[in-house]
Amino acid sequence: MAPTATVAWKDRRLIILDQTVLPTEVAYIQLATVADVWEAIKVLRVRGAPAIGICAAYGVVVAALNAPAGDARACIVCVKDAITYLGTSRPTAVNLFYALDRMKAIVDTADEDLTKEDLIVALEAEANRIFREDIFMCRAIGEHGASLIQEDCGVLTHCNAGGLATSGYGTALAPMYIAHEQGRSFRVYADETRPLLQGARLTTWELSQAGIDVTLICDNMAAQAMRERRMDLVIVGADRIAANGDTANKIGTYGVAALARWHGIPFYVAAPASTLDMQTPDGDAILIEQRDPDEVTHWQGCRQAPEDITVYNPAFDVTPASLITGFITNKGIITPPYEINLAKALADTTV
Amino acid sequence: MAPTATVAWKDRRLIILDQTVLPTEVAYIQLATVADVWEAIKVLRVRGAPAIGICAAYGVVVAALNAPAGDARACIVCVKDAITYLGTSRPTAVNLFYALDRMKAIVDTADEDLTKEDLIVALEAEANRIFREDIFMCRAIGEHGASLIQEDCGVLTHCNAGGLATSGYGTALAPMYIAHEQGRSFRVYADETRPLLQGARLTTWELSQAGIDVTLICDNMAAQAMRERRMDLVIVGADRIAANGDTANKIGTYGVAALARWHGIPFYVAAPASTLDMQTPDGDAILIEQRDPDEVTHWQGCRQAPEDITVYNPAFDVTPASLITGFITNKGIITPPYEINLAKALADTTV
Repeated sequence: MAPTATVAWKDRRLIILDQTVLPTEVAYIQLATVADVWEAIKVLRVRGAPAIGICAAYGVVVAALNAPAGDARACIVCVKDAITYLGTSRPTAVNLFYALDRMKAIVDTADEDLTKEDLIVALEAEANRIFREDIFMCRAIGEHGASLIQEDCGVLTHCNAGGLATSGYGTALAPMYIAHEQGRSFRVYADETRPLLQGARLTTWELSQAGIDVTLICDNMAAQAMRERRMDLVIVGADRIAANGDTANKIGTYGVAALARWHGIPFYVAAPASTLDMQTPDGDAILIEQRDPDEVTHWQGCRQAPEDITVYNPAFDVTPASLITGFITNKGIITPPYEINLAKALADTTV
Repeated sequence: MAPTATVAWKDRRLIILDQTVLPTEVAYIQLATVADVWEAIKVLRVRGAPAIGICAAYGVVVAALNAPAGDARACIVCVKDAITYLGTSRPTAVNLFYALDRMKAIVDTADEDLTKEDLIVALEAEANRIFREDIFMCRAIGEHGASLIQEDCGVLTHCNAGGLATSGYGTALAPMYIAHEQGRSFRVYADETRPLLQGARLTTWELSQAGIDVTLICDNMAAQAMRERRMDLVIVGADRIAANGDTANKIGTYGVAALARWHGIPFYVAAPASTLDMQTPDGDAILIEQRDPDEVTHWQGCRQAPEDITVYNPAFDVTPASLITGFITNKGIITPPYEINLAKALADTTV
């Protein structure tokens, strides 16, 4: 079974899987207005950088569809307003602006003599391209990484770099979906990923929906599971990859990488080549911000720690390149020396 | 400030701190009947092997106090019934039976001509001895370990091997209480300790009550905190120490030990010499049982993972002796070679 659709565009209707109620409820909802799209991104009904970008792109098409009847001019005004408005939903999401900029380029270059329908068709085509590019990128990551997942092996992953964060196959989970499509059987271990439990809530859900054998563990159980030789490799996603290969990802990733090295288990980072940031020389240049202590002290409104306790809650950590066996990208698997090979892969526009 | 009292015997009344409502509520309750004591142990109002033993011992005194007026004979019957009954409250707790056996020896050797009051006095004296021995043992661990905690250093601990589990000072936390009493200032990092969050709920609470600077972290943040040099040593407790020094303790301990070694941070296990089990040659002889999946998938009744998901939930893990810098015991700090030095310490009855 293929991964569950996160965002779908069908008969000019934008449908998303509401991730705020997972895993206890599976609800597909239509986002019928730009306000609906804004709210869905804001409250994380849709999450993960690629999925947010795709959703926002279709949100722009929704704006055009809802524009008053008439020529393209009135429609263009509505669309531009929508683009500005949607940009305020999650201002830190790079893919959101990337997608909105592409949609804006369509209206900026639109012929004023177009009909409203012509404009809608052009916008819809661009949103579909953004969507398809992500599908293609995820599949490419999956196809390059799938060979690492041998019959009967065990794979550990951390957080959710899965289909729920993208158009469908995800990044870290893409090799698993492809290996599963190729008929191999293997076991996935999913770190629950405190404090927000993306592993427990999302990774286990999407993998089990696809029929992949998945076992949930608490983050602090990974070491023991490695010691028991339950896993043969680790695949995680990435928020940002520095020029030397140092990789920022969800807090806990670095610990998994160090433990994998300790146990002699290969550790891979799966990410699109666009995650590589050549402007960041190494991990030391990445500032690690602290998040709200309530994420650690509370769960679903229940306090689970004393009041006013000091909390250390870094949003992510940086795994040094020396701990990374390879990067599984849409341009192939990149191995050390990373200073040379990452730049080379990025420069290669043939794939 | 000294640690909070977990169990208190005052004016022949048994008072405990109800740990089931911590940290949101601080409630001291009287256990006025043997049934109250049984229930308190059963539902973990009192927890931690030493604290359970102490509570049960006073529970036997409560039985004697509540016996019908008359000679010692009727009282002895009540006391024996109470001992049998209390033994069913947590049948896996070794300290429970150790304490009950000592109380039983008092009635078994009691002169039939004793008055009820004589018997109560004898039982009360034995319960006080069990209590004082634990206080003495914890303080000895603390005094031996305190010198490891230097001014301005950072200490990481996992789970709760604190005063709440013992008569007051705990085992892993004892060196911290003593160093604090000695006037040094230092920072403690407490792993929240999934799945049951003993670190978040109990360790942070008891240390902050005593005025010790404590910071709560999720288990998966320890590696990053070590990388940032926030901590200079690790001190944890132990469930069982094998003859070669391999140590079983709360799940997550082994990962902390491996990460500490990776970062060159000393890793200590604090435990009474009685935790050393010479019948267990090494860690391979310790069977790791799996606990209820619901502990991982639910929190306070709320489901946080898909239904019917497979869960790996080992109760504890085994840290190999090679990762342990030293054992902080009531007989001093024991360093390698453990095969020789652990046996030597156990044989030494002079301290």
